[in-house]
Parts: sequence; C-alpha cells; structure tokens
Amino acid sequence: MIFKNKELYNYMKCVFCLVGVLLSKSPKSSQGHHVSMSSIDGVKVCVCVCVFQSLDYDNSENQLFLEEERRMSFLGFKCLEISRWVICGLIGFLTGLIACCIDIAVENLAGLKYYVVKQNIEKFTEVGGLSISLILWAVLNSAFVMVGAVIVAFFEPGAAGSGIPQIKCYLNGVKIPRVVRLKTLVVKVCGVICSVAGGLAVGKEGPMIHSGAVVAAGVSQGRSTSLKKDFKIFEYFRRDTEKRDFVSAGAAAGVSAAFGAPVGGVLFSLEEGASFWNQMLTWRIFFASMISTFTLNFFLSIYNNKPGDLSSPGLINFGRFESDVSVCGLLGALFNTLNYWLTIFRIRYVHRPCLQVMEAMLVAAVTATVSFAMIYFSNDCQPLGPDQSEDYPLQLFCADGEYNSMATAFFNTPERSVRSLFHNPPGSYNPLTLSLFTLTYFFLACWTYGLTVSAGVFIPSLLIGAAWGRLFGILLAAITPNGSVWAVPGKYALMGAAAQLGGIVRMTLSLTVIMVEATGNVTYGLPIMLVLLTAKIVGDYFVEGLYDIHIKLQSVPFLHLEAPATSHWLTAREVMGAPVTCFNRIEKVGTIVDVLSNTSTNHNGFPVVVPVAICGLILRSQLIVLLKHKVFVELARSRLTQRKLQLKDFRDAYPRFPPIQSIHVSQDERECMMDLTEFMNPTPYTVPQETSLPRVFKLFRALGLRHLVVVDSENRVVGLVTRKDLARYHLGKHGLEEMQLAQT
Amino acid sequence: MIFKNKELYNYMKCVFCLVGVLLSKSPKSSQGHHVSMSSIDGVKVCVCVCVFQSLDYDNSENQLFLEEERRMSFLGFKCLEISRWVICGLIGFLTGLIACCIDIAVENLAGLKYYVVKQNIEKFTEVGGLSISLILWAVLNSAFVMVGAVIVAFFEPGAAGSGIPQIKCYLNGVKIPRVVRLKTLVVKVCGVICSVAGGLAVGKEGPMIHSGAVVAAGVSQGRSTSLKKDFKIFEYFRRDTEKRDFVSAGAAAGVSAAFGAPVGGVLFSLEEGASFWNQMLTWRIFFASMISTFTLNFFLSIYNNKPGDLSSPGLINFGRFESDVSVCGLLGALFNTLNYWLTIFRIRYVHRPCLQVMEAMLVAAVTATVSFAMIYFSNDCQPLGPDQSEDYPLQLFCADGEYNSMATAFFNTPERSVRSLFHNPPGSYNPLTLSLFTLTYFFLACWTYGLTVSAGVFIPSLLIGAAWGRLFGILLAAITPNGSVWAVPGKYALMGAAAQLGGIVRMTLSLTVIMVEATGNVTYGLPIMLVLLTAKIVGDYFVEGLYDIHIKLQSVPFLHLEAPATSHWLTAREVMGAPVTCFNRIEKVGTIVDVLSNTSTNHNGFPVVVPVAICGLILRSQLIVLLKHKVFVELARSRLTQRKLQLKDFRDAYPRFPPIQSIHVSQDERECMMDLTEFMNPTPYTVPQETSLPRVFKLFRALGLRHLVVVDSENRVVGLVTRKDLARYHLGKHGLEEMQLAQT
Repeated sequence: MIFKNKELYNYMKCVFCLVGVLLSKSPKSSQGHHVSMSSIDGVKVCVCVCVFQSLDYDNSENQLFLEEERRMSFLGFKCLEISRWVICGLIGFLTGLIACCIDIAVENLAGLKYYVVKQNIEKFTEVGGLSISLILWAVLNSAFVMVGAVIVAFFEPGAAGSGIPQIKCYLNGVKIPRVVRLKTLVVKVCGVICSVAGGLAVGKEGPMIHSGAVVAAGVSQGRSTSLKKDFKIFEYFRRDTEKRDFVSAGAAAGVSAAFGAPVGGVLFSLEEGASFWNQMLTWRIFFASMISTFTLNFFLSIYNNKPGDLSSPGLINFGRFESDVSVCGLLGALFNTLNYWLTIFRIRYVHRPCLQVMEAMLVAAVTATVSFAMIYFSNDCQPLGPDQSEDYPLQLFCADGEYNSMATAFFNTPERSVRSLFHNPPGSYNPLTLSLFTLTYFFLACWTYGLTVSAGVFIPSLLIGAAWGRLFGILLAAITPNGSVWAVPGKYALMGAAAQLGGIVRMTLSLTVIMVEATGNVTYGLPIMLVLLTAKIVGDYFVEGLYDIHIKLQSVPFLHLEAPATSHWLTAREVMGAPVTCFNRIEKVGTIVDVLSNTSTNHNGFPVVVPVAICGLILRSQLIVLLKHKVFVELARSRLTQRKLQLKDFRDAYPRFPPIQSIHVSQDERECMMDLTEFMNPTPYTVPQETSLPRVFKLFRALGLRHLVVVDSENRVVGLVTRKDLARYHLGKHGLEEMQLAQT
Repeated sequence: MIFKNKELYNYMKCVFCLVGVLLSKSPKSSQGHHVSMSSIDGVKVCVCVCVFQSLDYDNSENQLFLEEERRMSFLGFKCLEISRWVICGLIGFLTGLIACCIDIAVENLAGLKYYVVKQNIEKFTEVGGLSISLILWAVLNSAFVMVGAVIVAFFEPGAAGSGIPQIKCYLNGVKIPRVVRLKTLVVKVCGVICSVAGGLAVGKEGPMIHSGAVVAAGVSQGRSTSLKKDFKIFEYFRRDTEKRDFVSAGAAAGVSAAFGAPVGGVLFSLEEGASFWNQMLTWRIFFASMISTFTLNFFLSIYNNKPGDLSSPGLINFGRFESDVSVCGLLGALFNTLNYWLTIFRIRYVHRPCLQVMEAMLVAAVTATVSFAMIYFSNDCQPLGPDQSEDYPLQLFCADGEYNSMATAFFNTPERSVRSLFHNPPGSYNPLTLSLFTLTYFFLACWTYGLTVSAGVFIPSLLIGAAWGRLFGILLAAITPNGSVWAVPGKYALMGAAAQLGGIVRMTLSLTVIMVEATGNVTYGLPIMLVLLTAKIVGDYFVEGLYDIHIKLQSVPFLHLEAPATSHWLTAREVMGAPVTCFNRIEKVGTIVDVLSNTSTNHNGFPVVVPVAICGLILRSQLIVLLKHKVFVELARSRLTQRKLQLKDFRDAYPRFPPIQSIHVSQDERECMMDLTEFMNPTPYTVPQETSLPRVFKLFRALGLRHLVVVDSENRVVGLVTRKDLARYHLGKHGLEEMQLAQT
C-alpha cells in the first residue's frame, strides 16, 4: 500500500543503498578522508534511480512570458501585488487557526487523560495496587499514539517527524515528493494531537512550521489537486518562483504561531530559504507572521474567556523573565549521534508500517512506565504553594499539603514542564530529581525523534536543557559562598534550554530571536546568543545538526549558503556535467521524445543551440506540454486555426506534469519538427569554463538557478552545472570533501 | 576653504544645476510626465562633471587573487573568520561606547542648561522681567548650536544631518566622498552633543547609525589615513566587498545602540544594504548589534549607579507598555514636501558656511523664543504628582503644587518629552496644549532638519506623532459614550508616533521591529505594522520618503531592490552604454594612459578582448596601480629581478588610488606594452543583448556588480551596463519614468 507511489519507492530504495554503503564502511574512513567518485562506484546505480526534482526559482523568460508581462498594465501589477498581500494575510490567518485548534485539542485530551489517571492513582495509593494505574496510563498513552502512528504510517508517511527538514529542503530549492499536499496537512495535524496527548517526549511546535508551509502552498495556488477543485484564482502564481515565496511566508507564519515570535519566523524563513533579499517579499512574510500570531492569540483569548487579552502569544511562551553562564553543546552532539545511529537502524529494519506503529506504541508504553517508576520511587516532596500553581499535583506518598516534585516534570505536557522549570521558585526541585529526570528524558526524547508520528523536537530539547540548566544553577549556588546572587535557577534553566536546543538543531540567528521573543526580554539576547554560538561550535566539532543529519541521510542535494572556503582551485570545467544534450532551435519530435524517454540521463534542462552557439534553454516540463498539445510545425501549417499555446496551458499543467511515457506520439508525428523559439528561455545565465567554484556557486545560489550553462569563448555549450554538481562539495574537518548525491 | 575638495565642489555645482532645472519647470509637469532625455539636455553638461564612484561588491577574481586563495590553508580561512568576528565585536563595543559618551554628555549639558534657566525663571517670575530669562535661554541655545554648526560647516560638511541618507547610499553601493572618515566621526559626535544640548528639535539617534558605520570602516581596515597610522592588521579586508560588509555591521550596531533594538538593527542593515543573504555575515551583524546594546547598557548602568541593571537598553526606550486606530501618513507627506522645498531653497541660497552657521543660530534662538512664548501664554496647570516624575517642573504662574503642562513638552530634551507623552496618566495634557505643541513643533522640526548641524529626525518625528496621537486619543475618548475603554491616550501616542515616523522615513520592516523592540512588547507589533504600512501607502501617494528625497536631490544613482514592474519591454540593448572602450590582452601603455586621462568618458571598468571576444575585465584602479609600478612587458624582460606585483600592492593603494594625472609616464614608456592577463578578472559576468531589464537588474543587484558586460551571440562586447544605466528607470505614478542621473 505504501509503495503504490513510485517516487517513494525509489526514494526508499535509494536510502537503503546509501545506508548500506554507510554501514559497510567503518565510520572513521567515511568521515576522515576524501570520498572520491571511484570509491563509491557500487552505489552509483542506486543514486541514479533516486529522483529529487529541483525548484526553478529563475523565471523562464520566454516570449510567451514577456508578451504577457508587456501586455499587463501598471494597474495589473498593482492588483497582483495586492493579491499577494491578501494571500499572505490568509496564510497567517489559517495557520494561526490551525495552531489554535491543535492547542485546544491537546489541552483537552491531555487534561482528560491526566484527570483520569490522577483519579485512578489517588484511588489506588490508599488501597494499594498502583500497578493498575500504571497499566491504565500506559494503555491510554499507547492508544493515543497508535491512532497517530496508524494514520501517519498507512496514509501519509510524509507527515512523519517535525517536517522541518523537508521544509528546509523545499526552501533550499529541492522538491520533496508530497510535502505540501493537503492530505499531509490533515494527517500532520491529527497526528501531532495524538502524539502529544499520548504523552510522548515530543512537542507540537515543529509540525506547525510544516503546517504553515502546506497552508501557504495550498492557498497560493487557488486550487487543490487532492480535492480536485480549481477555484480559478491566483493562476498567475502557479510557478515555482511564486510558490516558493509563499511557502516561505507559510513557514514563517508557522514559527510565529508556534513561539509567538513573528520576527523569529521571518528570520527562520530567510535563514533557510531566501537567497536574494527581496524587500517586498520580506514585508509580506512579516505580515503573514504577524497575522498568524495575532489570530492564534485572539482565538485563544476567546477560548480562555479573556477576549482581547493578547499578552501571551504563541503555543509556547516562556512567561516573562524579570531581569551567566557559558554551557556547551556536548549533550546536543551526543543526542544527534545517538539519533543518527538509531535512524540508520530504523531505515534498515523498521520500514514496514505495522512495525512502525508497533514501535511507536512501544515507546508510548515505555514512556508511561518509566515516568511512573520515576515518580513512584522519588521521595522529593514539596509543599503545595498557596496559589496552587501546579496543574495536576500528585500527592502519592507525600504528606498532606505536599506534592511529588518529580511528577511536575513527568506528569504533565512537556510545555508545562518547561515553564515549571523556568519559573518555579528556587528549591522546588531536588538535584537528584533533576539529574534523574534529565537522564531518562534524554534517552526517551532521543528514542522518540524519528518515530513514525508527527512530532517536534523543540520542546523535548528545551525540557532536557532546562532540567540540566537548573541543576547546574543549583550546584553553582551550592558551591559559591555568596549563593544568593547566583541563586536564580530559572535563568540557568533558560540558558540550558537554549544550549541544548542550539546543540541539537544549530540554527543560531533565528533561534536567538525566537528565544528572545518567547521570553519577551531583550536583555537575555546577548547571553542566549553566546550560549547558542558556543553550543553550535562545540556541537559542530562532533557531528552535524539533527536536521542536517536527516537531510543528509535522505541524500538530498542541499546547497549551503556559500561554497566551501578552500574551493577556489576548482573551476566550472571540473564541476560541470558533460557532455550536455542540446536541441536545435527547430528540432525533430522523434529526437525530443527519445531524449526525454532516456531514463538513464533524465535531464530536466536542455540548452538550445544555433548552430553551435547557445541561444536558449528549454525545460523538460515545457517540452512535455508542447508534446501533449502537439505543437508541431507541420500541423501549424495544415491547421491554421489551431489555437496558439498560451502561458495558461503551462500553468494548468503545473506542478504535476505528466511523464513522457503517458504521451502518445505516433510514428508520423515523430517525423514532424518542433519550433522551440517561442518557448525556450532566450537568455539563460552562462559562465565561462574558467570560472571558479565559489563564483559559480554565488551566481547559482543568489539567483536560485536550476541549470547554469557553461560556455567556451565562442559561446559554445561545453557543460551544464546543476544543483548536484555543487552540493557534493562540502567542507569537512580536513578540508574539501566530495561526496556522491542523488541525481537532481 | 570648503571648496578645497574638488569632488565636493563638483558635487555642489551639479546639485545647483539640477535644482535650477527643477525650479524652472512647474512642479506639475515634472511629476506627471515622462522626463525624456532630450527635455533635460540643458543639464547634461552638468551631470557629466559630477562623480559618484560605485563600490565593487564583486570580487575581481584575477590570477593574483586566485593564487592567494589557493595558497591559503584551511586554518588560514578559519583565522580570517575569527578575525571577522573579533572586528564585529570591536565595532559593537566602540559604537556602544560612543553612544554612551553622547548620552552622558547630552544629559549633563542639557541638565545644566535647564537648571540655570529654571533658576532664572523662578527668580524673575516673582519680580517680573521674564524677558531676561528668555534672552538667557535663547543665548544659551544659540551658543551651543553655534559651536555645533561651526565645526560642521567649516571642518567637515559631510557630518551634517543624520547621515542616514549617506549610509543608505553607501550600503546601496555608492561611494559618497568622505563619509566614513575619522574626522567625520569626531565632528559628528561633538556636533550632535551641541545641537541636542542646544535645544533644537532634533534627536541624537540618527547620527549614531552614521557613527557606527564610521567606526566599522575604521576598525576593519586596521589603519587610519587621517592619522597616517597603519597597524598592518586586517590587510585582507582592504577591499570594497569586505569593507561594505563591516559597514553594514556598524550601521546595525548604531541602530542597536540608539534604540536598544539589535534585531531592528540587523533588519535595517539588510533592508538597506545586503542584496545577497549571507548567513555568516548576518550572524556577525547580529553579534555586533548585541555587543553594542550590551556595552551601552553596561556603562550607562554604571553611570547611573545601578551596575548590572541592563533592563533599559538603547539611547531612547519608550518604557514598557502594559497592554486601534488607523492613522495616516498625510502629515508625514506634508513634512516631507515642506522640507523638500526648504532644502532646495537652502541649496540655492544658504551655501556659505557663515550663512549656514547663522541660520542654525537663528533656528536655535527662534526655538527658544517660541517655546518660551508657548509656555508663557499657556494656562494648562497640572497638580504635581506624588512621585515628582517631571524632571524640570516649571511652576511659573501656576498655583503652588502645580506645574505648567506645556513646559513638560517644551522645557525638556525631546527624548523625555516623548516618554512623558507615552506614559503620563490620562488628563496630564489639555487638548489645546497638545494642538499648539504639535503645530509649532511640526514647523520647528521641519525647519531644523537639513540645517548644517549633526542631528537626527527620528525623535522629532516621534514627538510630533506622539503629540497628535495623544490628542486623537483624548478626542476619541471624549466623543465615545463608553470613554473609559478607549481612554488610554498613551497608546494612541505610540501609534501616532509610529505613523508620523513612518510617514517621514518610510522604512516599514525595520521600523516595525525597532518600535516593537523599543516598546518591549510584541503585542503592539501588528497595530504598529498596520499603521506603518498605511502611513507608507498614503505618504507614497504624495511624495517620497525624506531620505529618498535627500538622496534624489544629490542625484545619487541609487538602485532600488527590484526593477520597475512594467519594464519587461526594455532589454539590455536599450539600457546599456555603448560603444565600450576595450583593451587588448597585451595593450600599449600609451593607449591605456590616453583612455584613463580622457575626462569626458571617465570609465572605471574596461573589457579585455582577444581578438574581439571578451576574455576579461579590468578596473581603472588596477590599471593605475600597474602604471604606478610600471609593470611593462619590456621592463620585465630587461630587469629580470623586478619584484612581481602582489595583491598587497593593490591593497596598500586602497581605497584612495592616485589620479592618473599624478602618474608620470615618459614618452619611451608610452611605447611599451602591458600584459593584463594576470590582473584582469578573467570571468566577468555577461548577459546577451536580448536580456530583459528585470533580469539584468536582478543579476546586477543580487551580486552587487559595478559593471555588467553585454555580449552578442559570438561573445563580442557590444555594451556595458553600469549602475547609472539601471538607476535612471523608476516607477512613477503613471508607469515607467526615465531620468537623468549623475555619471557613475
């Protein structure tokens, strides 16, 4: 069932091959030395099958496009601009609404669960037989998680995880199959509700970013292929350039809704996606973020019966801190390394949907059991505060008027636990409680990330960090003579949370802003930034960021922002792919069909030459549309009334152009000619062969290209640089390294 | 004295011509219709004299450069990266320190002044003869302003104004003469202290941005030409690319210090400067901003005897709002229009330094007189609060225990007045007081901006906006039946301030973030953004932003972020400059000297061809260094021991390359040949002639180019696109407009 989709099948196959190669080599050799082309010949067959399409961020400025643009009046452009703003507003609104639904659903489900379990525990604490409570808790958790895992594993595997790696890839310019579909969104939302309510060590923040992106992709296209509904609006935006811009806005709106951090959202989008700073686009992104936070706030304030009180933005906010320490990303690196091996294990052995569901249920049950055991054996009793700040205070074996401190950490949604760790007064936790909690939660979170459920890693990271940060603060207060000055464990918890999160995900700039916005206090900016930088530097020394690991494991041709520093000795000649399949300006249909059908090359862009000098570039998708509409020179002559092909025909086919196999071309038609002049991009970007790699990289990245033609001094095509040619160079510990990637 | 600098002289001459043309036409025709080339033939001679150099953001990747890069080890790049971070830290620290000095100096000087005047007023209120107080006040003001105006007018005219237009131009890629020199910084700092202490309607925030930029330019180059001191460090950074990056960081640090808004600073720099989003650069900019805020805070907290209390960042902070209205930018547009005509008047008539100083003193005296009159005739007495929140409460003719409300607005530094308007409880001001204050302050601020003193327009704009915003709030509360809900005039003051500032300067994104960070409350984000957007839209309908007006009046070839929407019908062929002066790969020295000496063309970049196809691009500055070192083929043969030219020689000459006239080339040498192969950039970016203007624009802007070669299908050079070719197209009210600009 899961393999009915061919792309996915190929993708899985490819990942298996790659992992096989990774596992067959000792980790030492794969990290330390140049991986040359020849040494991985065995995997080459495999990576050729694997198809990750790239996005075309560069407009194909062919005659049709230019004619349309020239026909359009000044007012027309104004209208387009206004619709862009309207779409961004809609994206923000819908994203905020989704966040609101998730929040309310999780609150209610988790509240119900904890209420039932608490009642049960209180009942059995006196009469004995707490094992029944344990079973109840474990069964409830597993049931929730089962639902979440089943829908993800059987209906839409693309909705697994936080979705942030996928969105990162999309914004980077790589099309991940099925990532921005409506079905993915629905499964994602239901899945995240189930997994958080099921008590897994996960957060609901990461999936918001994915949800925002899906909303954006859907709204901006004015149609849904899943629902087979076309509203016939926003047709102008049906191309990669515009769609990617809106998806950036959606991701930003997601961050904004998740953390109440509109500026952080904008920076996240820019950090991950935008290559060329576009001022109007950034404003629109910011607008979407603002609307999203505002919507979430507004509806939550109504839900909480305090309409108009907009002071607590975001799904999680850390509360306000009323006002240092340099900690490191070692734990983050450890987390990532463990998760790396776990992921490889999973890819190898746990790939059947049934197994995936069972693993998820197992984790849920283990989480409940471990939590219960920790609470059961803990003897850290704290007096109940006068304001009853705990949500579900478990008395258990404590004296009357006291509650079990371990339970505030375990018997709660992770968001609330984080807030308790930040804000509970000094002395609320024993050092022993905190150490045990950190240790167990660390392993639980590590095991949980990568399960086939929709879930984020932000909150668990924050929670682990907050726990050991607070522990550190308590210890520091104990050993310093003038303990009172340093005795603000909540601050250490915040710094620890920042360090842990930074060590795991490694997004410095946007993360700083997100943290600052979530704490609502700019004075923490500098320490948070220093902590994050330290965590990044220390973590990078050992292993990459979690998202990057997962991206790399999928062998996505991910382009970083700059070429490796020591790559000036490489030139376009060495980097480019050659020879290149070129077409003549007027080409035989048979030739075109043969080239497109050739699965061994599977190119997407073809330079057009006359007679040898380059005069244009045409895309596979354009050729397919031309073949489908049989735009042949001979037919045009015979049937004069034939409708001229419009830009609309290309837009209607976007984004799922049919494969070449589905287009029937008869033997007669194969002898016809096609005139590409009108449809090719007459001014593709070109570089000379001697151009250095950083220069090629800069041009490619700044303009979001998909194909860059390399020419010699007479403008003859000598090669083609694509994403995979650039993505395979990266800076390792010992200088430039080259690796093999999936074909673009 | 002022005209000893030739560039400045030319610049003034050019502006006069331009203004003459502007004034000779009726404003209607110059706004409403296409200004074609022919209609301004009269001014053409003039604009040819005017020289604004562009910055080269594109590295010239010649053989020397590539060799150096290839020689450099991985560790070398690490060291460079670390020094970049160190420099950014230094920039932040020094900028914060300067902000701190300015703040303390202004506080003390203004405090002294107000103390003296207050004593005097109190003395004469009883015995009569308040005119003596008036004279004292006016004389004190004029004296301060005179000092400020004299140093600016006579020593460094480049330090006049806020410096923000100049920094905008610099970040945009236009080299404004003398803008990042040490002397400018010193004059700027002293000037701003004097003008704020002198009671002008100005702020000290704008000049901080300029100061930060100068600090950055100085620190990053590791030498000062003014002090004739070369520390022999950071030599690698002596080129336009690196220097501009650091100047971005400096500007961000300036914003950050001025408003306590590090994120706002980063966004300001990105909005104005960065074209290509560079992640590492952005982190460094953010780091500089953080350090800057932190430094300012730290030293101010020590100064205020509260060391470690870092809760009030920035030179101005609005205080914290405890948690709508859509207002418009009409007043902003009016301000800009008035200031536009005033500036033209000033450029025409007030250009002698003596006159400028006298005008500044006149404004100072008038400001004092008007303020005094307003206070004198006001009868808005308010009871003194228990906590004595006013800094200099003037009793004047009020009853005991009361103070004059008008005086809180006028008898204070503008920063404090803004805060009073935001935070004083409802009822602190009469509507009449506010209207009178708004009206007079509006005209005073408008008159003041553009005086030959260093001063910013942020605070006066905020003050005007706050006053009428509060007025609006009071009126709204009066007319609504349930007045109490809306009766928070401070919020209206904030919105009014945002609207007024937005209407005047029109920086939406960074301004929103700055305002949000300065208020310290993210819930105001959405209303502030909406208000700013409205103000921008309304304001843009009437007239451009203040900074843009001033940039345009100086006829700077400023590139906006995108090509005008309706410019798809233009191609590179129509836009480019042709014919182009090309050199051969091995060229006669005489030819080169003749071309460089030709003042009528004055090109800066020359394509190198072999025999007709393009094979490189060489810059004027490079040729000058080659000529200076007499790198001739014949000499190399005869003197084999001659030192090979190094990249260091080019760096030492940077940024003030000698003019061609100062290089003596004998008649014999003129017959020698020069081999340009090693020094030219062998892979300049090229475009075909048919490329549309938006495509050319995008390439040019994204990569920060200075020259873009236009080639035909055989790679022959047919034209050269420079900044001025692109900057002359802009979108007017009725579609595309073309205008004549100064030659780049």
